[in-house]
Amino acid sequence: MKSFRKELWFEIPSRRGFVNITSQVQECLRESGIKEGMCLVNAMHITASVFINDDESGLHHDYETWLEKLAPHEPVSSYWHNRTGEDNADAHMKRQVMGREVVVAVTEGRLDFGPWEQIFYGEFDGRRKKRVLVKIIGE
Amino acid sequence: MKSFRKELWFEIPSRRGFVNITSQVQECLRESGIKEGMCLVNAMHITASVFINDDESGLHHDYETWLEKLAPHEPVSSYWHNRTGEDNADAHMKRQVMGREVVVAVTEGRLDFGPWEQIFYGEFDGRRKKRVLVKIIGE
Amino acid sequence: MKSFRKELWFEIPSRRGFVNITSQVQECLRESGIKEGMCLVNAMHITASVFINDDESGLHHDYETWLEKLAPHEPVSSYWHNRTGEDNADAHMKRQVMGREVVVAVTEGRLDFGPWEQIFYGEFDGRRKKRVLVKIIGE
Repeated sequence: MKSFRKELWFEIPSRRGFVNITSQVQECLRESGIKEGMCLVNAMHITASVFINDDESGLHHDYETWLEKLAPHEPVSSYWHNRTGEDNADAHMKRQVMGREVVVAVTEGRLDFGPWEQIFYGEFDGRRKKRVLVKIIGE
Repeated sequence: MKSFRKELWFEIPSRRGFVNITSQVQECLRESGIKEGMCLVNAMHITASVFINDDESGLHHDYETWLEKLAPHEPVSSYWHNRTGEDNADAHMKRQVMGREVVVAVTEGRLDFGPWEQIFYGEFDGRRKKRVLVKIIGE
Repeated sequence: MKSFRKELWFEIPSRRGFVNITSQVQECLRESGIKEGMCLVNAMHITASVFINDDESGLHHDYETWLEKLAPHEPVSSYWHNRTGEDNADAHMKRQVMGREVVVAVTEGRLDFGPWEQIFYGEFDGRRKKRVLVKIIGE
């Protein structure tokens, strides 16, 4: 069994944002030389997500609006977590809805995707450097 | 390391629905001959889910009602994604709540489940053919 | 390829609660002797979660409040599932938001975590014995 590990770094200039990281994960897979196996991609931070969905800007706007409705940033003081001096409690909620990680099948040396599947980094508390882990195991 | 791959096809006659696919995944596991490892089951479409929960029709009714409350289909025009000509933005939200994939342990040739765990395909934008990927790795 | 399996048992004295299980999973990893691979940790029950987030009591209070708002326990009769004699339909919803499982990379014999990542058992229908499965594959 082979294994491969790489960290991808991001610094989103705003509090929230989505970045398509599919080509970076594909590059990891090429580097790994693995043809059959599984590829784990996870946020290493607990106020960020990795998820698979569509690369369509209207949809990303809708996610932003919807997540803000499910777990509003304001009023900051409504969250006990923010009494620690943080203002990112809502980001910990949003990340649970969107998920921490995806596991993607690796088949014949490629990410085994349906027609519209793309991998995104979802940032909910940005303006600082944060990491995503890519781990691939197989043969 | 062995690996196995199979696509399962579904065509749900209504917009939304849940289908128990546990026996189909078990059949994949038998075909694979894998005794120890991990089994990934994921929706290949971004308006559908694969999740594990209870096979109880009342609960599925509750999921339907609850998801419709969290991310209503109507008004269709409230979602920017639907300006592309789609009417399925809500399906992209519902899928994030229910999840894209499950990873199940494979132990002694069986899906290593608790007493009530069953695998479901969750459709949120049906009335067309869509796929689920089963990928199993191990020995 | 090596594989390792262990069940962790919990009995939460209240209906809902969060337990940090990181050290128990690390102990499983040590026992397994696996240095490179993947570690699956999943709830074996469908009214409980395994998730990764911060070990901060204010945040856990916020999760409790937030989940109760998204999927209230009362009125119990509002859920069809509860007509079966159960009163835990809300727990099946809360578990979907928080997730069934996490997959963690194993690198150089350790859980390959970012700075604040901790694994939690999330109970939404406690006061009875329930299990978490730890399955590790690799070399």
